[in-house]
Formats: sequence, structure tokens, C-alpha cells
Amino acid sequence: MRVILVLLMGLVAAPGFSQSDDSLFIRKIYDEALVRGQSYEILRTLCKDVGARLSGSPEAEKAVQWGYQTLTEIGFDTIYLQEIEVPKWTRGSIEKASLNAQGKTIALDICALGGSVATEGELTAEVIEVKSLDELKDLGEEKVKGKIVFYNRPMDPRLINTFAAYGGCVDQRYAGAGEAVKYGAVASICRSMNLTNDDHPHTGSMSYPDEEHRIPTAAVSTNGAEMLSSLIKKDPMARLTIQLDCQYEGKARSFNVIAEMRGTENAKKIITFGGHLDSWDKGEGAHDDGAGIAHSIEALRLLKATGYKPKNTLRVVLFMNEENGNMGGKTYARIAGESDEEHIYALESDRGGFSPRGFSINGTDEEVATIAEWKTLLEPYGIHFFEKSYAGVDISPLKNGEGAPFPNMIQLGLVPDPQRYFDFHHSDADVFEAVNKRELELGAATMASMIYLLDLYGVASGQLH
Amino acid sequence: MRVILVLLMGLVAAPGFSQSDDSLFIRKIYDEALVRGQSYEILRTLCKDVGARLSGSPEAEKAVQWGYQTLTEIGFDTIYLQEIEVPKWTRGSIEKASLNAQGKTIALDICALGGSVATEGELTAEVIEVKSLDELKDLGEEKVKGKIVFYNRPMDPRLINTFAAYGGCVDQRYAGAGEAVKYGAVASICRSMNLTNDDHPHTGSMSYPDEEHRIPTAAVSTNGAEMLSSLIKKDPMARLTIQLDCQYEGKARSFNVIAEMRGTENAKKIITFGGHLDSWDKGEGAHDDGAGIAHSIEALRLLKATGYKPKNTLRVVLFMNEENGNMGGKTYARIAGESDEEHIYALESDRGGFSPRGFSINGTDEEVATIAEWKTLLEPYGIHFFEKSYAGVDISPLKNGEGAPFPNMIQLGLVPDPQRYFDFHHSDADVFEAVNKRELELGAATMASMIYLLDLYGVASGQLH
Repeated sequence: MRVILVLLMGLVAAPGFSQSDDSLFIRKIYDEALVRGQSYEILRTLCKDVGARLSGSPEAEKAVQWGYQTLTEIGFDTIYLQEIEVPKWTRGSIEKASLNAQGKTIALDICALGGSVATEGELTAEVIEVKSLDELKDLGEEKVKGKIVFYNRPMDPRLINTFAAYGGCVDQRYAGAGEAVKYGAVASICRSMNLTNDDHPHTGSMSYPDEEHRIPTAAVSTNGAEMLSSLIKKDPMARLTIQLDCQYEGKARSFNVIAEMRGTENAKKIITFGGHLDSWDKGEGAHDDGAGIAHSIEALRLLKATGYKPKNTLRVVLFMNEENGNMGGKTYARIAGESDEEHIYALESDRGGFSPRGFSINGTDEEVATIAEWKTLLEPYGIHFFEKSYAGVDISPLKNGEGAPFPNMIQLGLVPDPQRYFDFHHSDADVFEAVNKRELELGAATMASMIYLLDLYGVASGQLH
Repeated sequence: MRVILVLLMGLVAAPGFSQSDDSLFIRKIYDEALVRGQSYEILRTLCKDVGARLSGSPEAEKAVQWGYQTLTEIGFDTIYLQEIEVPKWTRGSIEKASLNAQGKTIALDICALGGSVATEGELTAEVIEVKSLDELKDLGEEKVKGKIVFYNRPMDPRLINTFAAYGGCVDQRYAGAGEAVKYGAVASICRSMNLTNDDHPHTGSMSYPDEEHRIPTAAVSTNGAEMLSSLIKKDPMARLTIQLDCQYEGKARSFNVIAEMRGTENAKKIITFGGHLDSWDKGEGAHDDGAGIAHSIEALRLLKATGYKPKNTLRVVLFMNEENGNMGGKTYARIAGESDEEHIYALESDRGGFSPRGFSINGTDEEVATIAEWKTLLEPYGIHFFEKSYAGVDISPLKNGEGAPFPNMIQLGLVPDPQRYFDFHHSDADVFEAVNKRELELGAATMASMIYLLDLYGVASGQLH
């Protein structure tokens, strides 16, 4: 009786793969990742043999070689470099700050923000603390001129999505110096974008309004920010001395590193997935974005190892220069737009190597709902989050903005648990040891499973067999 | 028009709280936990001022005092101790192992399993490796007699629920010595219950069949197990020497520590929630189960701080002796059964201080489904997991087993992300620094929110307004 029922169910099901086949294949992907996974070893060599790798640096060049070699050793169909031009900024060797307050000199943990100009020797001035760019504006030139502006608005701990807390705070870092200079400030420092109180200053990108309005700018650790805030309240005569010798050194040549598994039906239809190969010059760029690189390379390896033959071309891209210019993402999108390729989906992992939760999906409501139907297949692996949102910086130029070549494509960002990410982000704490092997492996398997489903079924049809 | 519609909606809704009121109140609980939370400080003082606290030890006594004082300082209605009797086992001061193989002597990281007898000075013997109790049985006395049995079956990395992988492996640790002695083994050692390859031996409970059949038994780190396995294959003449001077020292008096917020409608209806105050004598018992203690105390504090007036009595219990006897849980259940209290729900947190995912629910299918309806209220906080399963060791005797006083009550276990738990469990790695502040705070808020919903609505009615 049971046999007959099963046969009947087989007859009414659509031809091809069944939900049960998909479950089995996805199980196979996770098994491969957890038992014979290479993501952790990929991350280890990137972190330990290359280390931090800021665009334009010798270490970034080494990372390109590492990427090419790693992809070659795994043995994908096609492996090539895509040339790009990147800015070259160097931190230099001097980076220090001290506060003279209440008759004592106290050292502060700082680091230059990426793109900052140097001080001319030591720079000493009074500090004025603000919580926002608006507060700075209200104070105006009279209160700001000749001083060091100290931006001290913390990330909002109430936001469960820590990336939203970051987004609500990062204007201080990105635009703080450029705004402060308008009112005659001589430098600016910014509380690190970190939800934990610790001693690590966190760097990150910033920009000036123009060449004429540039002042040195640095991040101070969260503990340092608390101390500074307290001391300047106690002693109005307190003076901060900072010294930085970072500088721009023009442009450099670099590369995106690309590998493919060619599509068996539609070789010109492309599913791109990747992370960014560059990092800031702090720590080892482990969570940001060594994890995304490991996830992406391993995702393609998992599909190869499980014997999957893709319909469309699966392309892993190790993007260069996400951190300070996104020239890798922009160049990739331009070349894709000029080619005869049709880019149908793109996925990015750039939120760390933590336990995966799901995907942010940049598509129509209907497309998001269709992808969310796959939840039942992925829930056994703790994947429950499918929300309409931005997917990633590197893949963004393919779809978003004026003249983007594929405005109707669907983009997905892997969403790991976000609670610990900003403890590490852009700081010396972002090292290989901060990444857990199983959590990393689960992220790679989750990415591979989503690529498998996108390739096999597509989203337009909305069909799950 | 809009106003009228809202008024009409008000009329058709049931009286009392609305879904929107619940959302707001739960938001208030999470805000309090994340902005003014005390869970992390509670955990810090337990780990750093008390430290590891094995039942019967002076540190466990200190933990009882710490618990009483911490609950008193927060200022709950009623605070009291519940006396229990616990076993007293001490690790002693000698705990070492070395392998003599290929002409070299190599030290191995071991620690006695909790409850092991000592060796008489140094014990040296040949090692025989097995992967299971069944394999031991197949080998029989001929192959086992006079040797040290080495249990080396790893936890299954494919299982997404690492607790299931633990459950599939822990028979080697718990029953390994007792089985080995039947075939004449002189000692047994067991691969640590850990999914990561590292140098930490992980202790844990074990038992002997009777007083006459007792041999010394210890855990070896996962790295040590790999090395040992490799070396004894290379050199059949290899000999392992171990020395342990652990021992039982009879029984000791100890306590569960209890605090309440009295119910305003049904003071005799009890919602119990807790973790266990004792730990193994390794590390600081941070994830196991300092986190559960911090979650539970903070959950009650959050409900107090947000001004909640419970219908039923909310009772936090810091259970003693979960690790090697569960006398706290058993005694609590016995006394509850003899009282005029009606125990309606019990919650436990004993799976670490990681990012919370949901609850395991020990109840009927219908009860599980009713609780799962609250998912929409908790999803904004990343809570998605509601599955029928075992809830926790300490609360278990209230409901489970012959003669349990409240077989129809519903029990819930907080389920945090499980991927990292066994890296720390019962080892020197389980220290305060291994717990993330935000992840801990989210766990406490999740527990408080579930207690709020259970108290306000109950489950029998299945009603969400």
C-alpha cells in the first residue's frame, strides 16, 4: 500500500529533481564541507602566509598570487586575472597620540583612518567632543576653530542587526574630517566603530571634500574614547597631541582573481559569487573578508567535489579594493556589461565567518518570496533569514546605480550571525584565530547550496519540484 | 478615516494586551538587556571572583554565597537556600601521562574523568585503541586484559546539532571504564568530547558498574588522541604511563539558591527557570553553566526592571550539582511535589552563552505548536527555532521519570547557536573571555520574553491577542 502511494506521488510530481533529491544533494554539500572541507585551510594560508593586504601594497600583490595559486591547485576550468587600478595609501611608521590632562600625560590607542593625510610632526590642540555632524554644525567655527574634533557617538546597542548600528554611526568616520575642516578644525578623531569596550582602534575609509580641505584624522579605541571623554570634562585645559605620517602614493596596478566552472547548457549565463581579497592593514583581514574569500572558493570546490554539473557558468571572483574605492567591483561590472555575457545572479559574502543565518536579497518582493520558499530545504542547517535588502559592495555595480549593466539581476548577500562582527572589523583583533572552523564551513556550504538552487531552478519560474 | 478604522479594530480585538503591546513590551525587555544589562557583570563576578566550582568543593560553597548575595543585591521578593547533599570528588594534584614510543617519551595532555579512582603511583601498560564499546566487546578479554583501553571515536562533524554529536559519543566517556574493566583492562582513556583539534583535555562524568570494578580513567585532548593513535600504530611496543591521584571523599552539604517574584493572581502557580551553579573543576565554568546562571538571574531582573507584574510566581533557581549527580534538580522536584505548589512551566539555560536561536520544548505536539505561534514576536531578535525536544537536566525531575510530580507541565530549554559549545565544555578553555557580551545579553532577553509570554497568556489556551 505504501509502495503504491509513493509511486502515485511520483507520477504527480514534476519531472526532474524532487524536493527529496534536493535535500539529499544539499546534505551531500554540507557533509563535504564539514568532513573534508578546505575553507579553514584556505583562510589559514591567506591570513598566515599573506596577512593584512591593503590595496596597492606588496601584501595585496602577494594575495593576488595566493588567489591564483589556490584556485589553480583546486583545479577549476578557467582561471584568470582581471586588471584594475587601485589607490595606494600607506600608514607609515609613526602613529601616536597622548593626552596632557591634570598634570599627567596619558597615551591613547589610535590609528589613522584610511586616506588620512599626515600631521606635520606633532600636532597639539584642545579637544572638542561632539556626538554628531549636526552637533558640530551647531557649534560652528567659533567653538571649533583651531581644535581637534572628537566624534564620540557610540553604535546603538539596541539594534539587533549590528550592521544597522554601524550604518547609523559611520558618517562620523567617513565624513567627520571633511566636515570639521569647514569650521577650522586642525584634526579630527573618531570613536571606533565597535560595540565592545576594548583597546583596539578600528580603521576604515574616509574622504575629504577636496584637495584643499584636508586635516589628519584617526580612530581611537572605545576604551580610549571613554577615557578621553572623561578626562577633557575633568580638565578644560587638557591638550591632545597626535602624530601620523600616513600618505597617498598615487595609483597602483592590481587584479581581481577569477575562476569558473563552465555552464553545460548556458555558458554565457553567469552566476557570480565572491568576497573581497583586499583588507585593511590591521590584523589579518580574517572575518573581513578572508572569510568571504574562503566561503566563495570553497563553495565552488564543494559543487565540484559533489559532482554537480551546472547549467549556467559558475564564477568565483576574488574582488580587489573593496575597502577603499571598490575598483574591483566597478571594473568587473563594466567589463561584464561590455561582454556578451548575461549576468543572472550574484552572491557576496562580506559579513564575516560566523554561524550562517540566511541571505539578504536584492530583488523584487516576488523574487524574495520565491527564494524564501527554499527555506524548508535549508532550515535543517539553521538557515532561516531571507529578507529584502542590500547584498554587497563588490557585486553592487552589476545591478545598482545609473548605467548598471544588469539592473534586473538578483543579488544575494550571505548573512551570518552579526553579533561579534564589529569586535574584529578593521582592527588588530581580526585574525585567523577569531574564526571558528565549523562556523566557517557552514557558511561555505550554505553559499554552495544557494548557488546550486539558483542554478538548477532559477527564480523567475518560482518552481520547486 | 484612519482613526475610525483603528477604533473599530480596537473593538473587535480581545480585551487586554494586543500583539502590538506585546511587541513593545518585548522590545523594552531587549532594550534593557542591551543598554543596562547586568548579565555580563553577573557572569564576570561568578567566573573571576568564584571561578570553577565543583560540587562539594570550597569554591562551590563560595558560589552559593555569591548567588545569595547577587540575588539580594538585585532585590527580589524572597531569597532562600534549599539544602541538598552532594558527592565530593577531588582531582588531587597529580595528573600526567606520557607515551614511550620509538625510543622517545612524549607527554600527553590528560585530565581525570570526574569520579575516577586514582592510580597506585605510575601505571604503565600497552594501549589498545577502539572506536566503540561494541568494538571492545568484539576484542574480548584476550586482547584487552592488562592493557589501557583507548576510546577514540570522534564526535560526528556532520551533525549540525553538536549536542546530538555529543550524545552519539559520550558513552565512551561515561561507561568506557566500566566496560573495559569487565575484560581485564587496567585503565581507560577517552578522546575528549570536542569537535576542534586542540590541546585541551575535557573532563566530564563517568560511572563504574560497582565498587569492585573500578579502574582509573582520563580524557586526552583531541590533538593528543590523534598523536597517540598515530604513534601506537607506528610502534607496537609503545607503552603509556599514567598517574592520577583523584579520589572520592564522601558526601558534602550544599544548596540550591532560589529567588522569587511573587505572582499577583496565582502565587501558588510556579514558573521555574534556572541554570546550574556548579561546574566542573576546569576553566571557570563560563559557558557551562555560568551563562545559564547569568541568563536566569538577568531574566528575572529584566522583568522587574521593566515593571512587569507577573500573574504567577516567577522563581529563579541556581541549581547545584548538575554535573555529577543532579541532586539539586532531584531535591527541588521532590520538595515541589510535596508542597502545595502547582508547577506549570520550567525553563533551563544550559547550552552556553552564544547567540540565541530559540527553544527546545518538552510538551505535547499541540503545546509546541502553540508556543511556536509566538515566533512572529521573537523573530526580530533572531529567534526562529521551536522544536519538540528535551529541555534540561536540572528541571527534568519535575516532569520526567517515574513518580515525577508534574508530568503534564511544559518545559523549555534555551537553544543558543551550538557550533562553538564543545570547544569550551568541561575544559580550561571555558573562561569568561570566551563569552561575548551581546550574545549573552540577547540570551537573557530571550529567556525573559518567553517567561513573560508564558506567564501572561499560558499555553493551554493557545490564545495570542
